[in-house]
Amino acid sequence: MSPPRRRPGGRTARTRAQVLDAVLAELGERGYDGLTMEAVAARAGVHRATVYRRWEDVGGLLADVLDAANDDAWQPPDTGSLRGDLAALNHEIQDALTAQPPIVAALIAASFRSEKADRAQRRLWEDRYIRCESIVRQAIGRGELPPHTDARRLLIAATAPLYHQLVLLRTPPDPGLPDHAARTAAIAASAGAFAEPPPVGDT
Amino acid sequence: MSPPRRRPGGRTARTRAQVLDAVLAELGERGYDGLTMEAVAARAGVHRATVYRRWEDVGGLLADVLDAANDDAWQPPDTGSLRGDLAALNHEIQDALTAQPPIVAALIAASFRSEKADRAQRRLWEDRYIRCESIVRQAIGRGELPPHTDARRLLIAATAPLYHQLVLLRTPPDPGLPDHAARTAAIAASAGAFAEPPPVGDT
Repeated sequence: MSPPRRRPGGRTARTRAQVLDAVLAELGERGYDGLTMEAVAARAGVHRATVYRRWEDVGGLLADVLDAANDDAWQPPDTGSLRGDLAALNHEIQDALTAQPPIVAALIAASFRSEKADRAQRRLWEDRYIRCESIVRQAIGRGELPPHTDARRLLIAATAPLYHQLVLLRTPPDPGLPDHAARTAAIAASAGAFAEPPPVGDT
Repeated sequence: MSPPRRRPGGRTARTRAQVLDAVLAELGERGYDGLTMEAVAARAGVHRATVYRRWEDVGGLLADVLDAANDDAWQPPDTGSLRGDLAALNHEIQDALTAQPPIVAALIAASFRSEKADRAQRRLWEDRYIRCESIVRQAIGRGELPPHTDARRLLIAATAPLYHQLVLLRTPPDPGLPDHAARTAAIAASAGAFAEPPPVGDT
């Protein structure tokens, strides 16, 4: 079930917006280890008891931040070419992962600590990869890709190097990587690497 | 500087081996949150004071486990083809990330918690990617790849989907992924996706 949407003017929705904004601000300033229910309540100007009753713990707060991102109006890029779409997507990912304060990076790190944040982070990724399948459908429609291309594998191949370098290897951002990873995936995809069944002559 | 190698018979080396084995056992059974200096000392049969003096804290223990893995005799696969080598490498990664008890996964998770473990994890990855450059050199030597292929980018493209799915997306292991990600990277590499400068006609 998706959480209630913010309704401007609704008291519950306004409280949620204040609390989630406070979570983002605290997370950006202090990271996961500095995030407390008390600091969030104080910053939001909301009673502590309300925060505990509705979100239970820090994991619940982080999960709700991620769920709030999940019902937004985000749409995948639509540049007119597969390679352009994947490059634009990768630039968005690189920008998000290197933004200051490091909210997205902190939420990913938190998903290793809190089961609730983990489940919410995975819901968010699942939602984004499903939305991005339109990139692959449109490329098939334009004749750029074989009809039975596996959208998920292609999207993961295109985006995984960004996450690998910035989240796991934690190397400084490589300004050329978003375009390079997009070009690599597009070259492999055009050669049928993600087609089902695999290209003739291949095992 | 690399840590001292284990010398069978040396008292210091024996203590280190006992303590690191105890860290692995505790980590496998209890995960990072259950890992304590006291439990490691008790399990290893070593004085607590010795463990504190030599490793300082849990992060120091984890960093030493990772450094111990770093000076081992691991060599990259050598199957006679680029695709075969990358597939064998990916199978090793998938096996390590899905092993029970989940030592490697726990060490990666710990790298989000402890700066010492983070630095040691990155040293280990750096070492492994450097060793794996021989896969690319040999493929160039066999004429499978253009001479100026960027080994690091190719290796990351080949291996990143495994880490992305198992460590970040945390999907169940896909038995076909090691071969598929290897084949995808090999197809792109053969088409010059990792060649420097990029293939003619490309921007």
